Amino acid sequence: MSAFAAVDVIRAKRDGHVLTDAQIDWVVDAYTRGVVADEQMSALAMAILLRGMTPAEIARWTAAMIASGERLDLSSVTRPTADKHSTGGVGDKITLPLTPLVAACGVAVPQLSGRGLGHTGGTLDKLESIAGWQARISNDQFKSQLQEIGAVICAAGEGLAPADRKLYALRDVTGTVEAIPLIASSIMSKKIAEGTGALVLDVKVGTGAFMKDLATAQELARTMVQLGKDSGVTTVALLTDMSTPLGLAIGNANEVAESVEVLAGGGPSDVVELTLALAREMLAAAGVDADPEKVLAGGQAMDTWRAMIRAQGGDPDAPLPTAAHTELLRATEDGVVTSIDAYGVGIAAWRLGAGRARKEDPVSFGAGVQLRVRPGDRVSAGDVLLELRADDEARIPAAREDAAGAIVVGAAPPASSPLLLDRIA
Amino acid sequence: MSAFAAVDVIRAKRDGHVLTDAQIDWVVDAYTRGVVADEQMSALAMAILLRGMTPAEIARWTAAMIASGERLDLSSVTRPTADKHSTGGVGDKITLPLTPLVAACGVAVPQLSGRGLGHTGGTLDKLESIAGWQARISNDQFKSQLQEIGAVICAAGEGLAPADRKLYALRDVTGTVEAIPLIASSIMSKKIAEGTGALVLDVKVGTGAFMKDLATAQELARTMVQLGKDSGVTTVALLTDMSTPLGLAIGNANEVAESVEVLAGGGPSDVVELTLALAREMLAAAGVDADPEKVLAGGQAMDTWRAMIRAQGGDPDAPLPTAAHTELLRATEDGVVTSIDAYGVGIAAWRLGAGRARKEDPVSFGAGVQLRVRPGDRVSAGDVLLELRADDEARIPAAREDAAGAIVVGAAPPASSPLLLDRIA
Repeated sequence: MSAFAAVDVIRAKRDGHVLTDAQIDWVVDAYTRGVVADEQMSALAMAILLRGMTPAEIARWTAAMIASGERLDLSSVTRPTADKHSTGGVGDKITLPLTPLVAACGVAVPQLSGRGLGHTGGTLDKLESIAGWQARISNDQFKSQLQEIGAVICAAGEGLAPADRKLYALRDVTGTVEAIPLIASSIMSKKIAEGTGALVLDVKVGTGAFMKDLATAQELARTMVQLGKDSGVTTVALLTDMSTPLGLAIGNANEVAESVEVLAGGGPSDVVELTLALAREMLAAAGVDADPEKVLAGGQAMDTWRAMIRAQGGDPDAPLPTAAHTELLRATEDGVVTSIDAYGVGIAAWRLGAGRARKEDPVSFGAGVQLRVRPGDRVSAGDVLLELRADDEARIPAAREDAAGAIVVGAAPPASSPLLLDRIA
Repeated sequence: MSAFAAVDVIRAKRDGHVLTDAQIDWVVDAYTRGVVADEQMSALAMAILLRGMTPAEIARWTAAMIASGERLDLSSVTRPTADKHSTGGVGDKITLPLTPLVAACGVAVPQLSGRGLGHTGGTLDKLESIAGWQARISNDQFKSQLQEIGAVICAAGEGLAPADRKLYALRDVTGTVEAIPLIASSIMSKKIAEGTGALVLDVKVGTGAFMKDLATAQELARTMVQLGKDSGVTTVALLTDMSTPLGLAIGNANEVAESVEVLAGGGPSDVVELTLALAREMLAAAGVDADPEKVLAGGQAMDTWRAMIRAQGGDPDAPLPTAAHTELLRATEDGVVTSIDAYGVGIAAWRLGAGRARKEDPVSFGAGVQLRVRPGDRVSAGDVLLELRADDEARIPAAREDAAGAIVVGAAPPASSPLLLDRIA
């Protein structure tokens, strides 16, 4: 087929038709090989965003993305495997305590993670604030670490779903990120190709998430759960609140520190609650009977964390980077913290240097926002609400505005809102 | 503004918002300069196609495309100016007899034309079958030929609406051709920039046209007429039938031959009828009182044709190229020619080599389809229906199938259908 076939596929979707299996297989493969050009795929992505896809189209598209690269074989790992994926939020460091915790319970956790973009953080950026830690490991090391320690958090290899790698970068610059068929197939193609036996999805809902409303998040969750099941991966989704940041730390090094607190038996209650909820789902999906609360309290999760960090060259005892400049934001009146907007805090942390504007930018490990209050806390004028941290002082003023706009201090305490909103299996 | 602004513009249109003047000005200029990438513009074009644009957005987009390049000043031309634009059809050689005819009536006709792509032919390709004729001339020659002879058909200069040149090529490969805002602004930006005082649009409707139904064609016509008026160009649109090819010749050299027949006072009645109808509109729009039928019969249009061809290096007396191979298609039964489908005949001519698959391909001047019958003609089994002409014999079989499928011979004569469907001013 020539480049003319690409126009036929684009037109079909543009006009609201269902793409055939042959069209999907061809266009994904041809795009990976560079036969279909970026400008053709972005037009198709926009047509998919505006016209939608049937479940069968999404399943075929996902299969084609998996087929664009290698599929890992984890049959050499003797323990059952289970992975977790979050659709991304503000202060979402759950992967850090969760992976060693579930591994310490007897499940192997093959956690291929990504980097932050925009206002949401990335697990690899956070872990790289630990001296010596390496995100890239070989497939062989991946499997042997999974067998010996049970826990791996690393970058996905180049060979895994290369079509997705290329398409994800394209969607980011063409306004085509928010398409459920493309989000679902992007996540699930990588997770299925990585070879995990079970998968728990943490689908975020709220201002700090890509999905702003529950109905859209439920649709995405159902789509992904079905894709997992169709591929023989036991898949469960929790829908969780992302209108408020998770925990008190938003950044890189400070999120590692908060994760270590959780592994030591402390940490903010919402981070602990979500870590345990996801751990229970992963254990159940993997068919392992264990009590993660007991394992966390017993210190075995911390042992696994230290082994996991060391196995990838990191020093778990090294002091974490700190920012060169800090500034405190204080309450201007007495009252109750009514809300802390996840998006506003995420943008503030991003402006401070915790995130990147372009894929090739470096992040500042010490930069970020450290909250000192939670919704419901009573404050007096002059009390510290949060701390802004940056290596580059010039970044603070704009971030201060976003952060100040994100915290509301009022008269009445907020209505209590649950962290867990729904479960789809 | 950075590349991030491009995503904001794409998202705004994607979500159904009206783009601001500043967004439109910026995105058209930035695309022309290469700051907005092809993959971003194609996503925006798809969003425009599916979400539409308000009249004010289309007007601003058109103005931004004009502002991307130079605007010709025809004030040195003492005669009133009028141009014609057809949205493209099969056998549509009307520009060839029309331009010298209207010039012979006292109007200067600055006809910037294009090349064929797909199943529709291009005026420049047709004229290049005349030995020596040059499509590219300087702006100075353009103006002096317009002043002295009154008729110029040539390629648009590189400086005219460069944004449109770039966007048109992009739309062609990304399935975003069929967007009324983009079609209207593409046509009108070039016509307004070329400096004509009046403009007559021939909006084609039917299987052989881009617009398949009258309602869509009317919407396009109204949009373009308004754009012209807003820019001070007297603009009128005729909506004309393109379900049947125009005339008997479809190709390049054979269309020139048919045009010369019309200039000599003969030619197929539909080509004569449409040429005269458009000439009357152009003369009225330019405010010139003349009878084109008399001028055509008097031979002055032929004189102007010869002068116009000579002025661009062509020899009006040189024999036209002929194809190396011809094949006759004959009726298999007795009956009446019920219909001749423009699209099918256009595709057959394209396959024979009259058109090109990619912009950089050459065309074969002698290739094409020569009809021997018209709808309503009575035929007996064995009568010749049409002639297939090609330089490359291997191209004939596929074209024969298309051509055979395009001609229907039945029992009852076709209902008479008018050539002129509507007029919008």
